[in-house]
Amino acid sequence: MSYDAALSRLREIDSELNMISHIAAVLSWDQETVPPAGAEERAVQMGWVETRLHEMITSDEMGSLLTSLGASEEHGSGDPSLDEHSSALVRILFTEWNRQRKLDASFVREFAELTGRAHRIWAEARQADDFSQYAPTLERIVEMVREKSRRFGYVDDPYDPLIDRFEPGTTTAEVAQLFAAMKKDLLFVLDALKDRRAADDAFLYQKYAQDKMEQFNKEILETIGFDFNRGVIGISTHPFTTKLGADDIRLTIRYTEPNVTSSMFTAIHEGGHALYEQGSSNPVTRGSSLAGGTSLAFHESQSRLWENIIGRSKAFWIHFFPKLKTLFPTQLNQIDVDSFLKGINKVEPSFIRVNADEVTYGMHIILRFELERALLTGQLAVKDLPDAWNEKMVKLLGIRPKNFREGVLQDIHWSMGELGYFPTYALGNLYGAQIFDAMSKEIDVDALIASGQMQSVKEWLNEHVYTYGSVYKPKDLLVKVTGKPLDSSYFANYLKTKYIDGGMA
Amino acid sequence: MSYDAALSRLREIDSELNMISHIAAVLSWDQETVPPAGAEERAVQMGWVETRLHEMITSDEMGSLLTSLGASEEHGSGDPSLDEHSSALVRILFTEWNRQRKLDASFVREFAELTGRAHRIWAEARQADDFSQYAPTLERIVEMVREKSRRFGYVDDPYDPLIDRFEPGTTTAEVAQLFAAMKKDLLFVLDALKDRRAADDAFLYQKYAQDKMEQFNKEILETIGFDFNRGVIGISTHPFTTKLGADDIRLTIRYTEPNVTSSMFTAIHEGGHALYEQGSSNPVTRGSSLAGGTSLAFHESQSRLWENIIGRSKAFWIHFFPKLKTLFPTQLNQIDVDSFLKGINKVEPSFIRVNADEVTYGMHIILRFELERALLTGQLAVKDLPDAWNEKMVKLLGIRPKNFREGVLQDIHWSMGELGYFPTYALGNLYGAQIFDAMSKEIDVDALIASGQMQSVKEWLNEHVYTYGSVYKPKDLLVKVTGKPLDSSYFANYLKTKYIDGGMA
Repeated sequence: MSYDAALSRLREIDSELNMISHIAAVLSWDQETVPPAGAEERAVQMGWVETRLHEMITSDEMGSLLTSLGASEEHGSGDPSLDEHSSALVRILFTEWNRQRKLDASFVREFAELTGRAHRIWAEARQADDFSQYAPTLERIVEMVREKSRRFGYVDDPYDPLIDRFEPGTTTAEVAQLFAAMKKDLLFVLDALKDRRAADDAFLYQKYAQDKMEQFNKEILETIGFDFNRGVIGISTHPFTTKLGADDIRLTIRYTEPNVTSSMFTAIHEGGHALYEQGSSNPVTRGSSLAGGTSLAFHESQSRLWENIIGRSKAFWIHFFPKLKTLFPTQLNQIDVDSFLKGINKVEPSFIRVNADEVTYGMHIILRFELERALLTGQLAVKDLPDAWNEKMVKLLGIRPKNFREGVLQDIHWSMGELGYFPTYALGNLYGAQIFDAMSKEIDVDALIASGQMQSVKEWLNEHVYTYGSVYKPKDLLVKVTGKPLDSSYFANYLKTKYIDGGMA
Repeated sequence: MSYDAALSRLREIDSELNMISHIAAVLSWDQETVPPAGAEERAVQMGWVETRLHEMITSDEMGSLLTSLGASEEHGSGDPSLDEHSSALVRILFTEWNRQRKLDASFVREFAELTGRAHRIWAEARQADDFSQYAPTLERIVEMVREKSRRFGYVDDPYDPLIDRFEPGTTTAEVAQLFAAMKKDLLFVLDALKDRRAADDAFLYQKYAQDKMEQFNKEILETIGFDFNRGVIGISTHPFTTKLGADDIRLTIRYTEPNVTSSMFTAIHEGGHALYEQGSSNPVTRGSSLAGGTSLAFHESQSRLWENIIGRSKAFWIHFFPKLKTLFPTQLNQIDVDSFLKGINKVEPSFIRVNADEVTYGMHIILRFELERALLTGQLAVKDLPDAWNEKMVKLLGIRPKNFREGVLQDIHWSMGELGYFPTYALGNLYGAQIFDAMSKEIDVDALIASGQMQSVKEWLNEHVYTYGSVYKPKDLLVKVTGKPLDSSYFANYLKTKYIDGGMA
C-alpha cells in the first residue's frame, strides 16, 4: 500500500474514532448536567461505546496501516520522510494502538462498567460521609489500575505508564524532582507569609443571586474570547470542559459553593480549557486526533494561567470589578478593587483542593501523588487511605480533616480510575508560569487585560499554543513556545513576586 | 440449537439493540434540549448509531435464530409452543428483521440522506412560506415511500404496509371505515354547537411567569404519578417523550405558545406517554423490546386520554384550579373554575392541528389521511397538494388557510418520510375513549381525580395497559382491556355527553 493510500485510510479511521469519542462525550455530558436517572444503564452504554472505540483502535487494519507507515516501538512517529502532521498522527495513533493492544476487550469493558458504577457509589459515600461504602469499589479500581500498569509495561516505576498516558514523555522520576523543588518554593512562600494578617474575605460569602452571577460569568467568557457559536455553557456539580463535536465545545460551571467567586473562577478555569479546545479544532486539525490539547498538563497550564495568573490579577479586576459592583452594589458596598483583590487572593491552608489558593494548591497535588504511588505499589492499602491522607495533610499543610468529605472523599478522579492524573494539575502551574513569562516578553499583557482587550491575549496564546493542537509533544511544544525546557523557577518567581514582593494576600 | 439457547441469545441481542437505541435517544435529547452547536456532526453521529442498529437487526445471526424458533412469513410469532413473552419477542423482532431486510443498504442510505436534508428544506420553506422550495424534495420522498411500500409488499392497498409499521395489524380499509363513522359523529357535534356563543378565553393569553408555570406543571406530573426517580422533565421547542434507558424516561415541555394552558396540556400529554413508558418498563420487560407501548395509536390513546378526557375535565380542575389561582391571582382574578373550563374547552375550527380542540382535531387527521392515500396512488401530484389541502379544509372545517404555514407546510412528518403516521393520532382518541369507558365501570374516576388521588387512576391503567408493554398486539390488548374490538361510538358518546349534554364549549 502506498504511503498516500495508507495515510488517507488512517485519517478516515481517525476521523471516525474522534466522531465516536464525541458520542461518548454526549453520554457523559448528559450524565453530569441532567439530574441523574438510569445511571446504571448509562454505564453500560458508555461501556459499549468504549468497546467499539477499543476495537477500532486495536484493529489489525490499524496495525498494518501504522506498520506500513514505518511505525514501530523504536520509531513511534513512523517513517522520517512523513510530513509533520502525518508524523504526529502516526505517533498519536501508534501510541494508542500499542497501549490498547495490551488490554483485551473484556478488561476494557469491565473497567468502563466498574468506573461507570463507581461514580455513583463515590457520590453517595461522599454524601453520607462514609468511606467504607466506597472502599471495596476503590480497592477493585486500584487492582485493575495496577493490572493496567503491568500490562502497559514499565522499566523503572509502575507509575510511569500511568503518568505517560496523560503527560506523554514525562517520567515519575522527573515529576518527583520537579515536585521536590516546588515543595521547597511553596514552603518558602508560606513561611514568608506566616506572620501576615489574613485578608478579610467575609464579603465573598454573602448572598449573590445566581442569575446575576450567570450573566456576569457569561460576560467574562465572552470577553476572553469563548466562541458561543461553537460552544455551550452548562451547569453541573463537578465543573468540566468537553468536546461533543469539532464545533461543539462545552464547559460547565457550578453554583453550589458558598464563596461567590468560586463560580467565576470555575468559569475562567474551564474557559481556559475551552479556548484551547476551540483554538486547536481548526481547519487543519478538525475532527482528527491532532485537535485538542497536546497533554493534560498543557491543558491545565491554560486553564490555570487564565484562572490564576490572569483571573486573579489586578489588571483583570480593573476591567471587571466596576461591572461586578454594578450587579451587586449592596454586597460590595464597602469594597474597593484592592480589598477585593486581597479577598480573592487570600492564602490559607484549607481542606478542599479545588478551593485552594495558588500557593497551597501544589501541596494538595503532592499529597495525592505520594498516596497514588503508595497505593499502586501496595505499600498503602485502601482501608488505610483515610488515615494516610490525614497524616499527610498535617505534614504538608498543618491541618487535619474532620471528616471524609473534606478529606479522602473529595475528588472524583479515583472513581474514574484515573490514577496518574493529579500531577498534571501542578505541572500545569509550572508550564503556565513559564508560558506567561514568554508571552509577557512579547506583548503588554497587563495593559491589554486592564483595557478589556483580552482577545489579544487569547490571540497570542492561540497563535503560539492552541493552533498546534497535538501536533507537537508537550516537551517540544514548551521549547517551541518559551525557548526552554520546563523549569519550576518561573512559577516560584511568579508566586514570590505576587505574594511576597507584591504584598498580595 | 435448542429453543432455550436460541431464545437466550435472541434476548441478549435484543437487549443490546435496545441499549444502543437508547444511545441514539441521548443524542437526540441533547440536540433538542441544548442550544444547537455542531448540528452537522451530530447528524453523522446519529447516522453511525443507526447503521450499527440496522446491521444488528438484519444480521444473518438474527435470521437464523428467528428461523430456528419457528418464525416465518406464515408464522410471525414463531413456534406455537413458545410461551407468551417469548412469542411476542419473536413476533416483534421477526417483523423488524423481515421488514428491514427488504430494503437494501443503498436504499436505506438514500432515504436517510433525503429525509435528513428534507428536514432543513421543509423548515426553511415554512419560514419563507414558500411551498415551491419544498415541492421537489417532497416529490422524491413520495416516490421513495411508494417504492418502500412496493418492497414491503401488500395485497389490497399500497397504504397498508405504511400504516402497519405504526399500527401493526390495522388495515387501510379499517381506518377508512372508522374515520367515516368518526367524521359523521364530529359533524353531528359541530352542527349541534354551531349556534353556541364562543367561550371567552382571553384571560389565557395574558403574561404568566414561566418559572411559576414550570412549578405548576411539575406538580401536575407528580400528582398523576410520573416517577421522578426514573425520569426527567426538560424544555424544548418541539415537545416529545423519549426513553434514554430502562429507568430514564424523559419528557419535554414547551413554553413558547401564547396560550398559557399550552404548556400545561403539553405536560399532561407527554406525561401520559411517559407514564406508559415507565409502567411498561418493569421487571418483566425492562431493557427488552417488550418494554414500551404496543403501537403508536395505543401510545397516543394514553397521552390523549390524560390530556383531554382527564386534563380537560371538571374533576381535574376542581383539584388544580385553586392551586393555579394561588400562583396567578391577578391573571385569574375574575375567573372561576367553570369559566376556566369553558376557556380551555373552546371548540372552534382552526388551522393548526396541534392546537386544535378535541372535536375538530379528528378532521385534521382525516384530511391528512385522504391526502396521503391520494399522493401514494398518484391520484394527487405534489404540485397540486396545497390546493387540495385548502379545498379539504373548507370542506371539513369551513375555513381556508391564508398561507402555506397555516396549511400544507405546518407538519414535520412528511419531511421525515413518515406517511402512515397521522392516522394513529385519531385512532388514539378512539382507543382512549373506549379504555376510559372500561375504567369508569370499575373505579369512580371523577371522584378520584377531584380528590387528587390520580395515582389510583394511573394504577388502574398501569395494571390493565402499561404493564403489558408490547406483549400483546394492539387489537388484542384492546379486547383484553375493554372486552370489545375498537368501536368509534365510545369517542362519539364522550364528545356528545361533554359538549352537547354537558354544555361545555
